Amino acid sequence: MTQSEKVRTRERLTELAMDLIERNGAMIAKSDLVAESRMSRARIDELFPEENDLFDAIVAQWFSHDIAIMEEIVRCELPIRRKFFEFFCRRFLRERERHDKDPALFALYCELGSERFEQVRGYIDLADHYLSELIAQAQDEGYFSDLPIDRALSLINQMVIAYTSPQIMLMIAPRLHEDKLAAIVDTLFAGLSARDGGALGTQDIRVA
Amino acid sequence: MTQSEKVRTRERLTELAMDLIERNGAMIAKSDLVAESRMSRARIDELFPEENDLFDAIVAQWFSHDIAIMEEIVRCELPIRRKFFEFFCRRFLRERERHDKDPALFALYCELGSERFEQVRGYIDLADHYLSELIAQAQDEGYFSDLPIDRALSLINQMVIAYTSPQIMLMIAPRLHEDKLAAIVDTLFAGLSARDGGALGTQDIRVA
Repeated sequence: MTQSEKVRTRERLTELAMDLIERNGAMIAKSDLVAESRMSRARIDELFPEENDLFDAIVAQWFSHDIAIMEEIVRCELPIRRKFFEFFCRRFLRERERHDKDPALFALYCELGSERFEQVRGYIDLADHYLSELIAQAQDEGYFSDLPIDRALSLINQMVIAYTSPQIMLMIAPRLHEDKLAAIVDTLFAGLSARDGGALGTQDIRVA
Repeated sequence: MTQSEKVRTRERLTELAMDLIERNGAMIAKSDLVAESRMSRARIDELFPEENDLFDAIVAQWFSHDIAIMEEIVRCELPIRRKFFEFFCRRFLRERERHDKDPALFALYCELGSERFEQVRGYIDLADHYLSELIAQAQDEGYFSDLPIDRALSLINQMVIAYTSPQIMLMIAPRLHEDKLAAIVDTLFAGLSARDGGALGTQDIRVA
């Protein structure tokens, strides 16, 4: 096979694997691909040397659209708070579509991802990388003042986790809505800074 | 048995049930209580008429301390943003203690609660009730201006979900910290209002 034939065959087999996962309701092994694709074990081994490589290909396929969205948003010309909103909202809407289409299959992928978290971590790190770029852009315009980027990143990730975590989607999908996400982004832009507003305090509780 | 003997015996059996759950790594049935308590089936049936009543008693015991915390905070004399912080932080610290002591047992209780969500819902509604009271107190002081209470409730719940959801605790416990929760509460007080800051927008994305 030429290199581009290899890439195409790998893609086709990854899609076949995802069809089989949907049909079986469970992760599949390379041996299932041999049986279903009618390709030889040697050919499958050439394309996916390790069992892990098959799951890696599935994860890459799962996240490919999200990566395209994030790359587009970081480079686009929208005002900064619109960028933040779109950065989260477009991925949220896509996840919700996948969830609503087949909640059980969505739950299965969540479980597979949790069990193999090390293979998913790279994509989470990539999302952090792009969000850090957006935070730097926002700070150039005076927002999130005096916050170190890593601290802003952690706080923002926690405040929008309802819209980025597939586990939360499984729990409260009907309560999630893009206009609430917009209100959260507006709250971040209006209120997030390094200033100590006094919530933590030092005072003990005295019951009235 | 007198009524107060009944209450005490029920409490003792609920604790025994939780010990058995910890030992077995799974939910137990009334028949296990009969075997372990050396009480008669008739006596157990008198105290827990239905299987559901046993889990209800466990849920009540699980949440009793949280309810005491929330009641104390709503009535105490702290400044309003300190109240908000303590309302979330004291329950978070207690959950983290339970989580850190035995993560596997904590995960088991999460699973049991998810499977029997209808029996847990009352406690979530109660937390919403107390938080609504705090929101009304904050609005009396001019915060969260023009937001209907239900909308403020939903947005605040979503922005602090990292600190209230046991599922999130299981995923990112090491990243949760009370000083981040304080920063989130300060952000809410500085930034949450009905004002449209422009995140949602109407403008399409144009790639640069």
